[in-house]
Amino acid sequence: MKVTLIGAGNVGWHLGRKLRDSGIEIVQVFSRQASKAADLARQIGAKPTHRLEEITAGADLYLLAVADDAIGEVASFLTAHGLERHLLAHTSGATPMNVFQNARHGVFYPLQTFSKNRESDFSQIPFCIDAGSDVDRELLYLLAGRLSPKVYNIDDAQRAALHVAAVFVNNFSNYLFHIGHEILEKNKLPFELLLPLIRETVGKLDSGTPYQMQTGPARRRDQETIRRHLELLKDEQQFRYLYEILTDNIFKTYFPQA
Amino acid sequence: MKVTLIGAGNVGWHLGRKLRDSGIEIVQVFSRQASKAADLARQIGAKPTHRLEEITAGADLYLLAVADDAIGEVASFLTAHGLERHLLAHTSGATPMNVFQNARHGVFYPLQTFSKNRESDFSQIPFCIDAGSDVDRELLYLLAGRLSPKVYNIDDAQRAALHVAAVFVNNFSNYLFHIGHEILEKNKLPFELLLPLIRETVGKLDSGTPYQMQTGPARRRDQETIRRHLELLKDEQQFRYLYEILTDNIFKTYFPQA
Repeated sequence: MKVTLIGAGNVGWHLGRKLRDSGIEIVQVFSRQASKAADLARQIGAKPTHRLEEITAGADLYLLAVADDAIGEVASFLTAHGLERHLLAHTSGATPMNVFQNARHGVFYPLQTFSKNRESDFSQIPFCIDAGSDVDRELLYLLAGRLSPKVYNIDDAQRAALHVAAVFVNNFSNYLFHIGHEILEKNKLPFELLLPLIRETVGKLDSGTPYQMQTGPARRRDQETIRRHLELLKDEQQFRYLYEILTDNIFKTYFPQA
Repeated sequence: MKVTLIGAGNVGWHLGRKLRDSGIEIVQVFSRQASKAADLARQIGAKPTHRLEEITAGADLYLLAVADDAIGEVASFLTAHGLERHLLAHTSGATPMNVFQNARHGVFYPLQTFSKNRESDFSQIPFCIDAGSDVDRELLYLLAGRLSPKVYNIDDAQRAALHVAAVFVNNFSNYLFHIGHEILEKNKLPFELLLPLIRETVGKLDSGTPYQMQTGPARRRDQETIRRHLELLKDEQQFRYLYEILTDNIFKTYFPQA
C-alpha cells in the first residue's frame, strides 16, 4: 500500500513516521514550506515537494493532514489535477466529509493531541474512520488497524460532537492548568506541587465516571470555602468570574432543584 | 511517636493506614459515626471512639482530619478538655492556622484528592506543613517525611492559594471531563474514546508549562471552528456559555492586544 502525505505539521509528522514504521510506503510528502517537506521526507524515505502540482497519481491514498481551512482548497486542486479517481482522506475532527468533491473520499482522524517534540503512543490513539463508500471505509479501517488497535467507524455528526468534547477535556482543561500555574507563580510556589493532584484527577477516571468522581467545595455546597476563594481571587477578575461560573454549573448539576 | 486520629473520612482513612504502615502508633481513632471509627481502628490497631470526651491525653499529635467547618469546634473542645498542652494539627488546605486556640498547633495538609476505594501513592503526595513553633514544625515535617519524600513548609497565605489552584486543576477539570462525558453519551459514543486524549493532556505537562502546551481553536483563533462548535452546542445553553467564556479567556491570554 502506497500513501502520499499532504502536510508536515504535528499530525503529518507523527502519522508519517508511524505509517513508515508500520511498513507503509510513503511516496511523497508535501508541505508549503520546502524545508519541512524535506525534513519529514528524509526521515520516512519519501520524495519531498512544496508544490501541489508536483503531486503525482498512483498512490492508494492521499492523506490530507493540513489546516482545517485548507482541506477544501487542497482537495479541489488535487481533484482537478489528475487525482479525480484517487482516494483522498483528511485527518480533521472538525471538518465534515462533504468538504470533498472527489468521488472517492474519507476521514482518517486520530483523536489525540500531537506535539512535535513528544513521542506519541499510537497503541493508545483511537482512530475515527469514515468514507464515501464501503470499499474505501474498509481500506481506511485496515490502514488504521496497522497503527492502533482502537479503530471506530464514526460519522460526521458523531465526529463533530467528539471534537467539541475534545476541546472541553483537552484545550479547556489545559487552560485550567494554566490558571493553577499562574496562581502558584504569583505565590512563589512551584507548579510541581499540583502535578500529583492533576495526575490523580485523571487516574480517578479508571474508578468511575467524572460525575461520580466530582469533589470539592461546589460539589458539597461549602459556601464558606467558596466565599473565601472568591475573596482570594478578587484581584484576578478573569479567574474569579470563571470560578463563579464553574461553581454555579456544578451546583446546577448536583442540586438541580435548589 | 503516638498519634490520635480525629476523623475517619477519606483523608483520615488513607492517612491513618499510611501512618500505621510507616510504623507510627495510632492510639485512638475518633469518628462521630461509631461504625466508621470501629472500621478504621480495627485496621490500624487503634482504639475507636465516637465521643470526643473519651479522647485521652498523652499522644504526641492529635491529627484533625474532619470537615473544614468542624475543625474549630473540635479543637476548642479538645483544648478545653485536657489537651491544652498537646499538639493539634489539621489536614485542611482551606483553613487558616488561627482556627486553633491551643498553644501548640499546626497544619499537616496532604495536597491530593482521596477516594475510599482507590489506593493512594503517598510517594507522589506533597505534604504542606506549618506550625505555631519551630519545634512543632520540625515534628510535623519529620512525620510527613515518613509518609512522602515531598514535604514543604507552606504558610497560611500560600496554602490558601494552593487550595484555590487545586479547585481549578482538580474539581473544575473533572467537571469539564463530565461535560465531555455528557456530549459523548448524547451521541451514543463511549467515554473511553476521550481517555487517551485526557491522559496525554496531562502527559504533555512533562514537556512544558500549560501556557506553552495550549492548543485548540481558541489558541489559534480559528473562528470558523468556534462558530461550528457553538452552533453544535445551541441546545446545551450551560455548556455553550462555558465554551464562550473559556474561549474568550484563552483569546485574552494569547492575544491581549486584540
